[in-house]
Parts: sequence; structure tokens; C-alpha cells
Amino acid sequence: KQHEIAVIGGDGVGPEVTEAALAVLEATGAPFNFTHYQAGDGTLEATGVALPQETLDGAMKSEAVLFGAAGACAAQVILRLRAELKAWANLRPSKAYQGVPCLRPETDMMIVRENSEGMYFGGEDEPEPGKATATRIITDHASYRIARCAFEFAIQAGYGKVTAVHKVNVLKKTDTVFLEACRRAAKEFPQVAYEEALVDSVAMRMVLKPEDFQVIVTTNLFGDILSDLAAGLIGGLGMCPSANLGDGPALFEPVHGTAPDIAGQGKANPTAAILCAAMLLRHLGYTDKADAVEAAVAACLAQGQTTGDLGGPLGTMGMAQAVIERLGE
Amino acid sequence: KQHEIAVIGGDGVGPEVTEAALAVLEATGAPFNFTHYQAGDGTLEATGVALPQETLDGAMKSEAVLFGAAGACAAQVILRLRAELKAWANLRPSKAYQGVPCLRPETDMMIVRENSEGMYFGGEDEPEPGKATATRIITDHASYRIARCAFEFAIQAGYGKVTAVHKVNVLKKTDTVFLEACRRAAKEFPQVAYEEALVDSVAMRMVLKPEDFQVIVTTNLFGDILSDLAAGLIGGLGMCPSANLGDGPALFEPVHGTAPDIAGQGKANPTAAILCAAMLLRHLGYTDKADAVEAAVAACLAQGQTTGDLGGPLGTMGMAQAVIERLGE
Ligand SMILES: CC(C)[C@H](C(=O)O)[C@@H](O)C(=O)O
Ligand SMILES: CC(C)[C@H](C(=O)O)[C@@H](O)C(=O)O
Repeated sequence: KQHEIAVIGGDGVGPEVTEAALAVLEATGAPFNFTHYQAGDGTLEATGVALPQETLDGAMKSEAVLFGAAGACAAQVILRLRAELKAWANLRPSKAYQGVPCLRPETDMMIVRENSEGMYFGGEDEPEPGKATATRIITDHASYRIARCAFEFAIQAGYGKVTAVHKVNVLKKTDTVFLEACRRAAKEFPQVAYEEALVDSVAMRMVLKPEDFQVIVTTNLFGDILSDLAAGLIGGLGMCPSANLGDGPALFEPVHGTAPDIAGQGKANPTAAILCAAMLLRHLGYTDKADAVEAAVAACLAQGQTTGDLGGPLGTMGMAQAVIERLGE
Repeated sequence: KQHEIAVIGGDGVGPEVTEAALAVLEATGAPFNFTHYQAGDGTLEATGVALPQETLDGAMKSEAVLFGAAGACAAQVILRLRAELKAWANLRPSKAYQGVPCLRPETDMMIVRENSEGMYFGGEDEPEPGKATATRIITDHASYRIARCAFEFAIQAGYGKVTAVHKVNVLKKTDTVFLEACRRAAKEFPQVAYEEALVDSVAMRMVLKPEDFQVIVTTNLFGDILSDLAAGLIGGLGMCPSANLGDGPALFEPVHGTAPDIAGQGKANPTAAILCAAMLLRHLGYTDKADAVEAAVAACLAQGQTTGDLGGPLGTMGMAQAVIERLGE
């Protein structure tokens, strides 16, 4: 049986880096059937909608979605996809790689970001001209669900600690709901250490001592900010994949954008997209193949077999090829 | 005429570092009258209130308040003070100092944080058990006011650029109110460059390229997070003073906490508190004295005349003395 994968290259370098990821997926020998769909700024211009119904239908009936990047309409496309696919967990690893210049080589953390509520889905109002409000919604249901997900991930991936990140000294009610759910989940996983920390202090400590953090679980907007911060610690978004998981098809997307300045030139760094492919393999149960892809990427990075942004001599597909060559090792 | 200064040492190392700052202020020869007031965890325990009316009255009738640190009740004390003093602007400099081990020596930025609304003062609700909401309020009035403050500060301090930090792709209404006010202010200060940037991307860029930022203007919670991040870049909160300014007495506080583990031992690093004293001097118009204190602090740091946390041989008052000795230079 083949796995149906919906592929949405999107805008800018999205299609290129996605092609690289597909090549690697093909090379693993796992049985995939890829179907390509349109979305993004280009699609909006051509058809009047950024995320056509056909794309949404294709994504919904797939087993997983591989996404590239979207331009100005990214929020529209990606937030809609996350919601429609009921992908309530956003897993964002940040891991320093040998060979990639970076500030904090000790960094190896997974940010488990709640994806279905928080500041993102509470709605906004403009009660009078010049005054607007936005609502942050936090429920026990979604908080408990994401906290459990963080602990389960920690156990599966061999991390020993989960840190719940909050701002309960100011957001007393909403973050009390969040923290109480986290504490309940923590009790069910006594083998994993549990800590709580204020988001401002975490922003500082991630810079000063990133090795203090292993798995971070947090609400939507804090997760958005902290995962970009973590990307900064390992040298940028070029090495940051992400997985959106929940009750529907899983959605994998590099955290980086469309890089319009280098789009179409075959020189975009495909690392994040290829690491997305590895997360997809792991999600579908191909643990060995996922490990192999991640090891091959790490080997390429360590050996300078990379694109120009990292100082290497390769183009996008050249780096995919270099990863593929190292798959058996 | 003497300047009436209300001094609130607070908890932990608060009183010690404040004494160091007072010694430096005295040594500048500017005419001050200091009155001490109580607040914090200790006061709460002793009197049942964290911020007694007497303290509030004393702060209100002063020309400026010098604050140390507060413990578990910090949010109560400091948010109340900011509100009562109508201190709607929170100025948080992060500047790397020679002699202080730090990740990003290029860092030299001022975060101008809106202090009167945002997520901090919109209120929370618990419409049903297990579900809570928090409201973010953004007004044109407060946004325009803080944006003007950022530009005025940039001109006064010789910075060439203001970056407005937002999340308008998700918080469309509230951050449109914020950005439109910033743009209006920007038009009045054509001599200063103006940029806008998403908060997540700023969190990454501050790590990767802090020299991209000079003055940042942003809403309350983003400012809270980013100023701690910036502190991380320069080696920690030990070198971070802050000024709360607005329509009432100004309030100066080190960004660091009470450090209970070293409280009462005379070894706390007074740098942030002494830099608060410099900000106070500047605020009252003693520009030369403010410059002198800042230069003396920088000299101490560069020459290793510091407390033990920075590898130096001095205690809290010893460092104050070292700063005072360098005041004339
Ligand atoms: C495009 C934007 C809406 C999105 C988000 O805020 O979630 C992006 O920043 C991300 O982190 O995937
Ligand atoms: C104590 C807390 C309420 C406060 C804040 O969030 O403003 C602190 O983190 C700060 O930055 O001064």
C-alpha cells in the first residue's frame, strides 16, 4: 500500500526545496504516491484564492502534507491548513549541527507549540475607532492535550525534561488553566522531569544556557516567538523543520519563508525541507529511514556538502543528491 | 532646590543594590533628598499589603522613584506602581560592555516598551470552568504616544533607526492600530529611519544580528519578552537598568530580580541599579553627571573592578566605591 502525500510547494523557494525533499523520500524506498497542489501568492494572483478548495480537499484526503513556503499570504494559507487538518500540535525542533556556524552548539531542544487556540484563534474586535482588542483563549482541553503530547514526545525521543512556558504572573487566569493542565499531564509521566518557567526569563535563558531546555511546551504565540529565537541560536531557520500533528493528516513545513531573492535559481538550502521529510517518515512509522535521513543530513552539514549560504559548493538538488548518497551509511 | 526621591529597596538584594546606587548619586553632588519606603514580600508578610498606601503616597509626591527588586509579589507591586505613576513608557537599554563575557558584543539597543495596555491591562475572564480568556487592548492614543517617545529618544540619544515590532499577520486589528500610529509618528521624524518587523522574526534576528536594531518600539508583552532576550545577548540581567516614564514621577528599576540566594551578603552586582541612577540623573537634566556615571561603570567593568558574578574582587559597596572613584575621569 502506498502513502498518499499531498505536496504543496507554494511560493518562492518552496517548490525547489520541496523537490529536494521528495527526491530524498523517493530514495528511501518507502512507498509514496505524491500529488501536487497549488497554494500561495502565485495561486492567489492566478485564481483569486490563496488556498483553493481543490488543494484543501487534496490535503484532507492525504495521509500527510508536505508544504514548501508561502509568501505574503502565508498566515491565510498556513493557519487555515492547520485548522482544517485539526493539527493542534506544532513540533519545532532546534538542534545545532556540526559544520553550521552557530552561536550555541549546545542547543538541542524541541518546542511543542499549541496550535489551535491562544492569541491565534480568539478573534479580534474594534469596539471604537482607534481601539482594538484581541482575545487569547486557553482551554483545559487543548492545554492538557498539548502537554500530554510534549511528555509523550519526550519519552519517545529520549528527552528527560519538559518545561512549561507561561506568563502566569500577568495572565493569571489563562495561564493558570494552562499550567494546571500541564501539571495534571506531568503526574502521568513521572519518569520525565517537569518544570515551569516565565516566558521572559526563558527568552533570556535560551540565549544564556540553551542546554537547560529539552522539551518546551507552550501556548501558540509564545511558541511562535521562542521557536524563532531557538532557530537563531543554531544559525537560522535554514535547519528548522516542523510538524503539525493532530486529528487529521499531518502537515510538515520548513519554518523558513520564501526567500524571494534567490527563488528559481536552484541554490536554496533544502536542509529544513529534507528534515521535514525525515519527520514525515518518522510519523508514518519508518523510524530507521527517518534516522538514516537525519544522519545523512548531519553528515552533509559536517562535511561541507551544503548550499552556498552555508559555505558549501552545492545547489539545492546537489545537496539532496549528497544526502541520498549517504543514506546507506 | 532638592529633588525628592522615593527609594523602595524591596526584597532580596534590592536594598543592597539600591544603597550602592544612592552612594553614587550622592557622590555626583546633585541635590537629592532620599526618603525610604517599604514594599515587597517582606512588607506583605509584616503588614498584610505588598505595596502600602504610605509607599504609594510617597512615590506619588516624589519627583522620581528608585526601586530595587520585589519577590513573589513583584507583579502586584510593579504593575501597580507603573499604573499609579502613569508611567506609560518603559525604556530598557541593552548594551554590551567591554569586560563582561557576552554572546553579542555588537548589541547596543533600546527597547521602548508600551507600559499601559496590551495584554497587561485588558483583563481576564473564565466564562466556564476549564476555559479562560485574556484580552489584549491596543489604542491609537497609547500607541502613538509610545511611538513618538521612541522617535524622540532616538534623536536625543543619537540612534538612527526605530523598528516597530508587531504580529500584524495574526493580530490584524490590534497591531494595525499599533502600526498605523507608529507610521504617523514616523512621518513627524523624517530624520530617523523607520522599519517594521514581525516579533518572531525579530526574536531570531536579535540573536543572529543584534546590530540590526537600534531603537525598538513595541507593545507591552512583546517588550517584556524581547528585553529579556536582549539582556541574554549582553550576558544577563546584571547590566540592565530600566526607566518607567510618563505623566507622573519617573520610576527606575533594575530589570533583574531579588536573587534570594545571595541576598544580605553584600556581594550582589549593583551595576543595573547604578545604571538606573544614571538614567535618573539624565531624566532630571543632569546630562553630564549621567554621562560620567555611565562612563565610570563602563570603566569598572572593563577593568574588572566588579563583583564576583563577573569575576571581579569587589562587593556591592566596593563596586559603588570604584564607580565613584572614576567619576571625575
Ligand atoms: C505565517 C505565520 C502566521 C506563522 C505563525 O505565526 O504561526 C509563522 O510565523 C510560523 O511560525 O509558522
Ligand atoms: C514582574 C513582571 C510583572 C514584570 C513584567 O512582566 O512587566 C517583569 O517581568 C518586568 O519585565 O518588569
